[in-house]
Amino acid sequence: MTTWNSTREAATQDVRASLRRSGTTWAEIAEHVDRPLLWTVAALLGSHPVPADVAEAVGRLLDLDEDTVVALQEQPYRLNGDSLRADPTIYRFYELLDVYGPALKEAIHEEFGDGIMSAINCNVEISRRADPDGDRVRVIIDGKFLKYQW
Amino acid sequence: MTTWNSTREAATQDVRASLRRSGTTWAEIAEHVDRPLLWTVAALLGSHPVPADVAEAVGRLLDLDEDTVVALQEQPYRLNGDSLRADPTIYRFYELLDVYGPALKEAIHEEFGDGIMSAINCNVEISRRADPDGDRVRVIIDGKFLKYQW
Amino acid sequence: MTTWNSTREAATQDVRASLRRSGTTWAEIAEHVDRPLLWTVAALLGSHPVPADVAEAVGRLLDLDEDTVVALQEQPYRLNGDSLRADPTIYRFYELLDVYGPALKEAIHEEFGDGIMSAINCNVEISRRADPDGDRVRVIIDGKFLKYQW
Amino acid sequence: MTTWNSTREAATQDVRASLRRSGTTWAEIAEHVDRPLLWTVAALLGSHPVPADVAEAVGRLLDLDEDTVVALQEQPYRLNGDSLRADPTIYRFYELLDVYGPALKEAIHEEFGDGIMSAINCNVEISRRADPDGDRVRVIIDGKFLKYQW
Amino acid sequence: MTTWNSTREAATQDVRASLRRSGTTWAEIAEHVDRPLLWTVAALLGSHPVPADVAEAVGRLLDLDEDTVVALQEQPYRLNGDSLRADPTIYRFYELLDVYGPALKEAIHEEFGDGIMSAINCNVEISRRADPDGDRVRVIIDGKFLKYQW
Amino acid sequence: MTTWNSTREAATQDVRASLRRSGTTWAEIAEHVDRPLLWTVAALLGSHPVPADVAEAVGRLLDLDEDTVVALQEQPYRLNGDSLRADPTIYRFYELLDVYGPALKEAIHEEFGDGIMSAINCNVEISRRADPDGDRVRVIIDGKFLKYQW
Amino acid sequence: MTTWNSTREAATQDVRASLRRSGTTWAEIAEHVDRPLLWTVAALLGSHPVPADVAEAVGRLLDLDEDTVVALQEQPYRLNGDSLRADPTIYRFYELLDVYGPALKEAIHEEFGDGIMSAINCNVEISRRADPDGDRVRVIIDGKFLKYQW
Amino acid sequence: MTTWNSTREAATQDVRASLRRSGTTWAEIAEHVDRPLLWTVAALLGSHPVPADVAEAVGRLLDLDEDTVVALQEQPYRLNGDSLRADPTIYRFYELLDVYGPALKEAIHEEFGDGIMSAINCNVEISRRADPDGDRVRVIIDGKFLKYQW
Amino acid sequence: MTTWNSTREAATQDVRASLRRSGTTWAEIAEHVDRPLLWTVAALLGSHPVPADVAEAVGRLLDLDEDTVVALQEQPYRLNGDSLRADPTIYRFYELLDVYGPALKEAIHEEFGDGIMSAINCNVEISRRADPDGDRVRVIIDGKFLKYQW
Amino acid sequence: MTTWNSTREAATQDVRASLRRSGTTWAEIAEHVDRPLLWTVAALLGSHPVPADVAEAVGRLLDLDEDTVVALQEQPYRLNGDSLRADPTIYRFYELLDVYGPALKEAIHEEFGDGIMSAINCNVEISRRADPDGDRVRVIIDGKFLKYQW
Repeated sequence: MTTWNSTREAATQDVRASLRRSGTTWAEIAEHVDRPLLWTVAALLGSHPVPADVAEAVGRLLDLDEDTVVALQEQPYRLNGDSLRADPTIYRFYELLDVYGPALKEAIHEEFGDGIMSAINCNVEISRRADPDGDRVRVIIDGKFLKYQW
Repeated sequence: MTTWNSTREAATQDVRASLRRSGTTWAEIAEHVDRPLLWTVAALLGSHPVPADVAEAVGRLLDLDEDTVVALQEQPYRLNGDSLRADPTIYRFYELLDVYGPALKEAIHEEFGDGIMSAINCNVEISRRADPDGDRVRVIIDGKFLKYQW
Repeated sequence: MTTWNSTREAATQDVRASLRRSGTTWAEIAEHVDRPLLWTVAALLGSHPVPADVAEAVGRLLDLDEDTVVALQEQPYRLNGDSLRADPTIYRFYELLDVYGPALKEAIHEEFGDGIMSAINCNVEISRRADPDGDRVRVIIDGKFLKYQW
Repeated sequence: MTTWNSTREAATQDVRASLRRSGTTWAEIAEHVDRPLLWTVAALLGSHPVPADVAEAVGRLLDLDEDTVVALQEQPYRLNGDSLRADPTIYRFYELLDVYGPALKEAIHEEFGDGIMSAINCNVEISRRADPDGDRVRVIIDGKFLKYQW
Repeated sequence: MTTWNSTREAATQDVRASLRRSGTTWAEIAEHVDRPLLWTVAALLGSHPVPADVAEAVGRLLDLDEDTVVALQEQPYRLNGDSLRADPTIYRFYELLDVYGPALKEAIHEEFGDGIMSAINCNVEISRRADPDGDRVRVIIDGKFLKYQW
Repeated sequence: MTTWNSTREAATQDVRASLRRSGTTWAEIAEHVDRPLLWTVAALLGSHPVPADVAEAVGRLLDLDEDTVVALQEQPYRLNGDSLRADPTIYRFYELLDVYGPALKEAIHEEFGDGIMSAINCNVEISRRADPDGDRVRVIIDGKFLKYQW
Repeated sequence: MTTWNSTREAATQDVRASLRRSGTTWAEIAEHVDRPLLWTVAALLGSHPVPADVAEAVGRLLDLDEDTVVALQEQPYRLNGDSLRADPTIYRFYELLDVYGPALKEAIHEEFGDGIMSAINCNVEISRRADPDGDRVRVIIDGKFLKYQW
Repeated sequence: MTTWNSTREAATQDVRASLRRSGTTWAEIAEHVDRPLLWTVAALLGSHPVPADVAEAVGRLLDLDEDTVVALQEQPYRLNGDSLRADPTIYRFYELLDVYGPALKEAIHEEFGDGIMSAINCNVEISRRADPDGDRVRVIIDGKFLKYQW
Repeated sequence: MTTWNSTREAATQDVRASLRRSGTTWAEIAEHVDRPLLWTVAALLGSHPVPADVAEAVGRLLDLDEDTVVALQEQPYRLNGDSLRADPTIYRFYELLDVYGPALKEAIHEEFGDGIMSAINCNVEISRRADPDGDRVRVIIDGKFLKYQW
Repeated sequence: MTTWNSTREAATQDVRASLRRSGTTWAEIAEHVDRPLLWTVAALLGSHPVPADVAEAVGRLLDLDEDTVVALQEQPYRLNGDSLRADPTIYRFYELLDVYGPALKEAIHEEFGDGIMSAINCNVEISRRADPDGDRVRVIIDGKFLKYQW
């Protein structure tokens, strides 16, 4: 199954290598292409096809070769995340769902009726919230409610 | 392995049966005990020990018997969530992590350094956000950053 | 994990027992409640909350007791399907996805861009198509395209 | 286990690279070889042996080398699909089966008796259906009913 | 998931208890109902709906109660086999497929082209073959070839 | 774990490449070495060590290099089959065991007592059986019964 | 899947309860029925049908009721072992196979050729071997070599 | 995870290639280094670090290069065995544990009390035992009993 | 598989119910029977057979019935832990092993040579360590080193 | 999924190769960089980003090239451990959690209330403890207690 993403995976590797070499941060890239931070990181790591103008801007910023710039624009197979679940930073989010998933479900159905929060028409933000007891990570998920409609 | 939660599971079933019979909503319970909605649902479904005063208030509201009120206060084994992952409403949240998990990780490390967002010193809110294109589910996760410290 | 659906599962069992005893068919129930066939079967097997008027009509038709009629209206946890995958009748559909899933994905993206076919705003029909070489099962899936929107 | 499909996998990679370079679409290929769209994509991605004349026509269109043209004609091991299940576009179809699989089974048995819909004598079409509330993906599965026959 | 087969499972248990009590053999039942041995055993163990006349004849032979006779006629969910794979008697057949499966596939495609041997239009026989070096189990699988047909 | 079979796997690849190039069929190879068809295919795909004379005859027929001829004679680790289970042609055989495995077990024990059919002292034949309703695949498994003996 | 062994499982439970109540040891039972220790324990725990005379002798010794004595004689489904693998006492044996399995395989093939050690025509003994550094568990496995024979 | 054993795996491959080329047997190597057969095979396949003198003696006997001789002495990660479980020769041993594991556990506890047989202070022998009904494989496991000690 | 521990599991449930009713703590029980805390909890939860005098003392303290006192003394199947891995409190320990397991292995081999730390001749302590930045959980594992000895 | 750690994995391989060539021990490296032993090993094996000064010091000590020194400083994906669980040295620690995990949980909650021991603000020490009955491995885990805080 190494087939499906091989070109995009190579592109991802090139992007990371370039970040490492140049010391550019994800935040600088996001600002450079004027897109939200998480979207930018996710897209460059292979969760979204990167629009041509963004791919080219990133290519110039990071000095990527042309093949990589093209590969970033391909429609990806989004298969990365769950295999990384054991990583402690990522695991904490899965654990939150394990602990609060049923409560989220019951609250959604009570408020909205039978349906789901879309994971497609949806955006996710992350920010730092200063706190005297230690700064906090703040993640906002905002997705359209979709009613079961036959 | 049915051992570990059997008493709390019975209590959960009693709570649900009582909700069904009485038509009480989760929101009414949360307001009655003056706790956040998601915490209240999660706690009553077995993700948190319910403090004595809350358990008793819920018991009076839902007309639960004394054994159930005691069982709600027990320290639970939190083992529910992932087995419910296939439910479409719950799955969408796991899918978001599958798609954006690596981006969340990279953004956290870039902003905060090596560490994690705590899933323990953390709260989760859910609300409805009106939108002309269809109302939206808004989930806010707010957890303390914990630095790897040896 | 027997907790989550126990009441609805009992209701499903009652419905099936009543079908068996009375010789009523799913098609007769669907016609009686004036709903599409597959929706009716799915809803009564626990994939949808059954609206009150439908539940009551089914209750009268099948002579179900009041608790069952109420239980059918509960919001279900939709956890049944994949565990039945090994059943030959059900497996053939999974096999089709195993064989044609990537092609469906590529065709959707080429025609619609980056997004998915909704499984929520979606309906599924089944019909018999006469054919001299042997009648055919015809399944139509019709779901709204949802574009990835940040 | 990389043995079984290695040559066909290389051919698939060549086809994709050529699509990317030339900007040819799947729809153009399907039209060029006068075959249904989904069949064409599936066959070129390794779910069907490609007949010699089709392989050669595709080879000329995409400027593939002779080894690739031969490899496309090999009898494949069809092992791709399920490992791609986590991709959101593909997952929605699996979810439909999880939710409606038992209903499909019950409806098939009630209408046809004991047997299955063939996944071999079967075709699958995909089309776009315009809709004022948003265009829809329409998938038609049409398979011969096979009765259990001893 | 105990829902789906519970009635048929109870019927299976009744049949086995009756066999044990009465000392009737599967071979005697098969002869009594004039059906092939393996089909008879499989059907009574829940792999086929038992036709009414056969169910009734078995019911009289084994002195089953009426509910059991009705339950045997239900359309089953065929979910038993693979979970029994570890049993040594059953495992040997799976091992044969592990060892000779690819060879069966290559031989079928070479002889018949692209397609499968049906597992639905198929019968399986078992017999004893005397042999001076120790008697042999002889299993004959005879299934219709189905060509991939779009 | 790619270690264990790497040389034999390379030999298998060489054999397949040579078949493809030369257009030789498995049936021609089997006839050339005067061995049963399924045994020949299985042995060349890595399920049996190939005897020296057979390996050399195949080597001459397919123009294999000396290293490949030696590698074919190695004692293999037989680890291929189950990972190919999802392939539709192979799956049908597993499904037969899922559906009829318990019946095979019960019939074996009733006829032979406590024991198994050997998968080692066993042979498997495949042939085509003409049938007006469509030709049939006929597989005969013939294995020595082994009694549990302490 | 609780169907297959339910009667034998109940019999096993009865045997264990009787052992506990009466203080009888497995060794005393084995001596009473004049069978090897491990065979006796395994048979009574459900890995072998217990011959009628042994079942009756055990029944008298342990004061089992008649149904249990009959149930012990049934042909079992042997499905217990691997699910107990995590138990530390049992795990050590699996670990030995994990560590020495390939060596056992290579040694068997070098000495005997292509084939296996039968697990059916096989017996297993356990004994205590005194040792000044701490007594030792000694397990002897003695199985017939079976050559691959087509 | 290919990292952990890569050097030792390469060394194992070299040893096997040398065996193949030179026709040396495992038994000859074991005799040459004056170590038990199974220990020698297991150590060279990566289940034990090979002591320097043994590694060098094997290196001279098999004409291994210096890097391989050093790599054989490394502390291995012992991760091979269970992934080979499906191989028929190895599977029979796992099956024995599946069938007799609980009996081994009960017999150990009855004779020795609460504890385990060590898999570390343990040796395993294999030999051929002539038998008129067919020679037998005899495996002796001899491990120190370790009492649970707090 | 509910067979193996059913009596001990019932005893565990009785102990927990009695703790809940009486308000006794694990620490009080441990002190009452003069055993280490973790050993006491583990033994009463089914990880060790409870010695007769301890079982009786606990029985008097918690007012357990005689059957429970006997059941606590049975040799348990230790199968609980890993299925509880998802519980956040327990998961943190597994995560530590995931993150530091290889380092523990390398450090043990460098200091002690080839072997393991026994999990049988081993004890585990837990204590609270006051700390101005928040109290700490301190777990000490102390196990005998066992050298691989053939 | 080979993408995520590929550079750090190459760095790990370089470190190990250098250790092997130079005969340097982990203890010497830890002392050289003045860090705790387990932290040093874990960090160099990819469980922590290595601070620049430490990476450079290790680079000089082990004569690593500049790319490796940079790669060691990258933020790792911590995904190694569980896949190594089968290794006997590592398994013993997992087994301890399987056996004592529930007891650790109960003891933590009784002493500290509802919360967890942090696996992030946590350190792990390993030392040798001389003992006349055989030296012992002593592992101390010391983590901050984190209370569930909404």
